[in-house]
Amino acid sequence: MKGMEKILENAMINSWTKHFKRSPYQINKSHKADAELIEIEGNKSHLLAVTIDSVAEEITEGIYRDPFTMGWVTVMSNFSDLAAVGAEPLGIVIAVSVEAERDEKFHGEIAKGMSAACQKLGVFVLGGDTNTTPTTSLTGCAFGFVPRGENITRVGCRAGDVVFMSGGAGAGNAMGLVRLTKLPEELFSEKYYRPIARIKEGQLVRRFATCCMDTSDGLLITLDQLLRINNLGFVVEAGWNKILTPEVFELCNRAKIPHWFMAAGIHGEFELVFTIPPEGINSFLQAAKEIGFQPIQLGVVQRKPAIEFVLSSKKRVKIDMAPLRNLWFTAGSDLSRSIQEHHAWGKKWGLE
Amino acid sequence: MKGMEKILENAMINSWTKHFKRSPYQINKSHKADAELIEIEGNKSHLLAVTIDSVAEEITEGIYRDPFTMGWVTVMSNFSDLAAVGAEPLGIVIAVSVEAERDEKFHGEIAKGMSAACQKLGVFVLGGDTNTTPTTSLTGCAFGFVPRGENITRVGCRAGDVVFMSGGAGAGNAMGLVRLTKLPEELFSEKYYRPIARIKEGQLVRRFATCCMDTSDGLLITLDQLLRINNLGFVVEAGWNKILTPEVFELCNRAKIPHWFMAAGIHGEFELVFTIPPEGINSFLQAAKEIGFQPIQLGVVQRKPAIEFVLSSKKRVKIDMAPLRNLWFTAGSDLSRSIQEHHAWGKKWGLE
Repeated sequence: MKGMEKILENAMINSWTKHFKRSPYQINKSHKADAELIEIEGNKSHLLAVTIDSVAEEITEGIYRDPFTMGWVTVMSNFSDLAAVGAEPLGIVIAVSVEAERDEKFHGEIAKGMSAACQKLGVFVLGGDTNTTPTTSLTGCAFGFVPRGENITRVGCRAGDVVFMSGGAGAGNAMGLVRLTKLPEELFSEKYYRPIARIKEGQLVRRFATCCMDTSDGLLITLDQLLRINNLGFVVEAGWNKILTPEVFELCNRAKIPHWFMAAGIHGEFELVFTIPPEGINSFLQAAKEIGFQPIQLGVVQRKPAIEFVLSSKKRVKIDMAPLRNLWFTAGSDLSRSIQEHHAWGKKWGLE
Repeated sequence: MKGMEKILENAMINSWTKHFKRSPYQINKSHKADAELIEIEGNKSHLLAVTIDSVAEEITEGIYRDPFTMGWVTVMSNFSDLAAVGAEPLGIVIAVSVEAERDEKFHGEIAKGMSAACQKLGVFVLGGDTNTTPTTSLTGCAFGFVPRGENITRVGCRAGDVVFMSGGAGAGNAMGLVRLTKLPEELFSEKYYRPIARIKEGQLVRRFATCCMDTSDGLLITLDQLLRINNLGFVVEAGWNKILTPEVFELCNRAKIPHWFMAAGIHGEFELVFTIPPEGINSFLQAAKEIGFQPIQLGVVQRKPAIEFVLSSKKRVKIDMAPLRNLWFTAGSDLSRSIQEHHAWGKKWGLE
């Protein structure tokens, strides 16, 4: 793993994990899988997969206003982590922290969002804990099982592998940007922000892919993290009209937002990014077709540890996500500075 | 379950759970176990036990000031739930939400508290999530396994069973009262508040007991909840010098606090309350002695669904926790009113 510590968020995670002893039952190392993979004594066929994820900043920053969305995303963000390791989900427990002054309707809408998300995935809320706090934050902990030997992690892609994404990018960043820059709500309504964890797709992907990670932090941060973990790079050949969902692509055109912003922000969309070796592509695509899964081909893995975009002019430009990732981390709340910096880099790289 | 809904906290939990479908794999019903008990496909020997618990109010109310305590209690409160179902713990994942302005030392002390608590129990932090929020709150999700048929829940005690507690009561309420009423710190220092989840004891208790629940919400609320779930009552025969830890008993004497306050508050101590049928007492006590476990005999289970105390005068007084439990829930922050009400009930019941 080269350059992991250059990313402040990774360094912060390391400053936490250094205090903890590793469990002898844990298969994955820190940073290297979306969910923790644990050996179970006496069970030779399966690993336990566990993840924990909070929805907090999106609420305090005002990106999510509808409690239904808050509940929905809490469930989906957790099962998306399970999807990225190819797990068969068992259920989720939730910790709900809500302001004292909130009424029963607010609580009820969070619960309905969680319940609807669970029904969509065929999973269950198994228990929970409630607390009274100055701001709302919701934590889920989802778990499931992965057949041993079939589990997939963020590690393992090789130069020449083809990079896919399970669906279009940009919905999370579109929501975030519309809200934070106070664009008109009708440009990207919260009602349509209902990401779906790619559980079924993850179970198929685990049979073919060399690595997998979800885009909960956005597409470019996902690629940058995979780059650092695998010490390899990515050439993105697909155009923005392929990479972004049609609604997001159209939003960019209407509101004059550079397309690449929708891949660069930290408000991701819970799709899966994964890599398939060339010799496996045909059988993967055939199996995908059989379950109605239409992945987007993004590009290829390259030996050089850099993210490169092939522009419509066929020119290749190299982008470095480190300054932008660290900007989100240090100046996340200084939005106008953040947008300015993005424009400056975008122009420098020839993406705007 | 009679009168569960009379307790506002139970009614609130029900208002949440009514939105959720039950998993066909879940063994326990709502309210009926400290941890969720889940069947695992293909595993006939064990159930998965999972719990989620946040430490939030204790931090915002200023009861815990030392980040080491915050981390320690997050781990212990979760494993205490696992102890109460007799589980063999596997590990814990944590979600850490901390103010942006906190320095690395604050984060490090939380991590050290978590790590020390894990080492004390021989368990591991397996992963986590970090967030930036306006106030600190810490959520853990612990999991483990229970041998099928040996798992224990809150349901099952019978009239005539003997009620035990795994250790002395009152430390949590002592900390809470000293902090909230601004008594001098030296009366009950935070440094000495290091509750230990009764994992080893829970594994022994599960072989002998008819029901078990941890005292994370304090002794009297625990008894009241067991009363409602089992539709039976408790006669407490032990004196306060037996029920409370020596430090807490002494604090009451020095600061002129009624002893029963230390059992009535919601800041519990993570001991186990459990019931043993008369015919099992001798073998239970023998087995306990072999592992150096000295449980406290509190009293007996009675048919009448009421909590009764046998005073030193041999007089029996009946207490009703419903108004006090609902007071914590509705006027938790109005401390002087809460203390006044406690005194009024204590005098009425002859406990002060």
